[in-house]
Amino acid sequence: MSAKEPKFCVVQTTIDDEAGAERIARALLAAKLAACIQIFPIRSFYQWNGETRADPEFLVQAKARTEDFQALAAAIRAAHSYEVPEILRLDVSAGDPAYLDWAARATARDAAAR
Amino acid sequence: MSAKEPKFCVVQTTIDDEAGAERIARALLAAKLAACIQIFPIRSFYQWNGETRADPEFLVQAKARTEDFQALAAAIRAAHSYEVPEILRLDVSAGDPAYLDWAARATARDAAAR
Amino acid sequence: MSAKEPKFCVVQTTIDDEAGAERIARALLAAKLAACIQIFPIRSFYQWNGETRADPEFLVQAKARTEDFQALAAAIRAAHSYEVPEILRLDVSAGDPAYLDWAARATARDAAAR
Repeated sequence: MSAKEPKFCVVQTTIDDEAGAERIARALLAAKLAACIQIFPIRSFYQWNGETRADPEFLVQAKARTEDFQALAAAIRAAHSYEVPEILRLDVSAGDPAYLDWAARATARDAAAR
Repeated sequence: MSAKEPKFCVVQTTIDDEAGAERIARALLAAKLAACIQIFPIRSFYQWNGETRADPEFLVQAKARTEDFQALAAAIRAAHSYEVPEILRLDVSAGDPAYLDWAARATARDAAAR
Repeated sequence: MSAKEPKFCVVQTTIDDEAGAERIARALLAAKLAACIQIFPIRSFYQWNGETRADPEFLVQAKARTEDFQALAAAIRAAHSYEVPEILRLDVSAGDPAYLDWAARATARDAAAR
């Protein structure tokens, strides 16, 4: 990826219902903060109040510009039903050039909006 | 993530049955080696003894401290049914601060245990 | 991972049918461009011609040598039904040594083929 082109990342969160996962996906697309979003059916294991929980959840994986991470995390928190949602960023090291161009256009917002 | 806060990573393995995936998840939580674990239903394709295999499996994704990777890998091997399980680490570049705090508390063990 | 051992990465693409996902997986294995491939059932959200789409798809995740990324991306494009498929690379920071050895052998091709 050349210096001028935006860098991309994968940002993931998890949530306990599909409608909530869809709400997050549509909010990120509407704000042009993600080029596309994938939703995976999962089971999550974690400790809560001393008890091991094993709950059906959905993992939401957004492809976004790295420079938009803070705005994207804020948008996820705004659309999320949890008080402290998982929001983690993994950076993309390389990608198909035509796809990255498409993703850059899909997340293009005028400078003031960044 | 400030220098003092622990760095986090995503560690994944795959296994051919859900009970085994759950066994790994519970072992990592009990040892405080993972903050949370997600289990995904997948199909795996690989070559085995010259034959292309296409098997239903489960992908286990743990969110852990990077400094705990060796201990976490050892715990996965101990709980795993395969002789040579896939264990791969992808590093987290950024995350929601409140979530990272929660994950740090969920994986806090006294220094001797590290 | 020592300097001599190949570095590994996870490369992902998405496609709208399981037969296509399987075709990609088998092509990458046959060319020894991936050690193994996992296929996940997902729902994808994206904008297309001004409309928000929410389509069932499959995410294909290949474990490959980082040095093979360009050849692997070309093989994915050749086997893919989309004009501009998502092809993204996330680099592996560490892994189980025995697994990485297995993956190196599974993707060993003579120098001319690289």
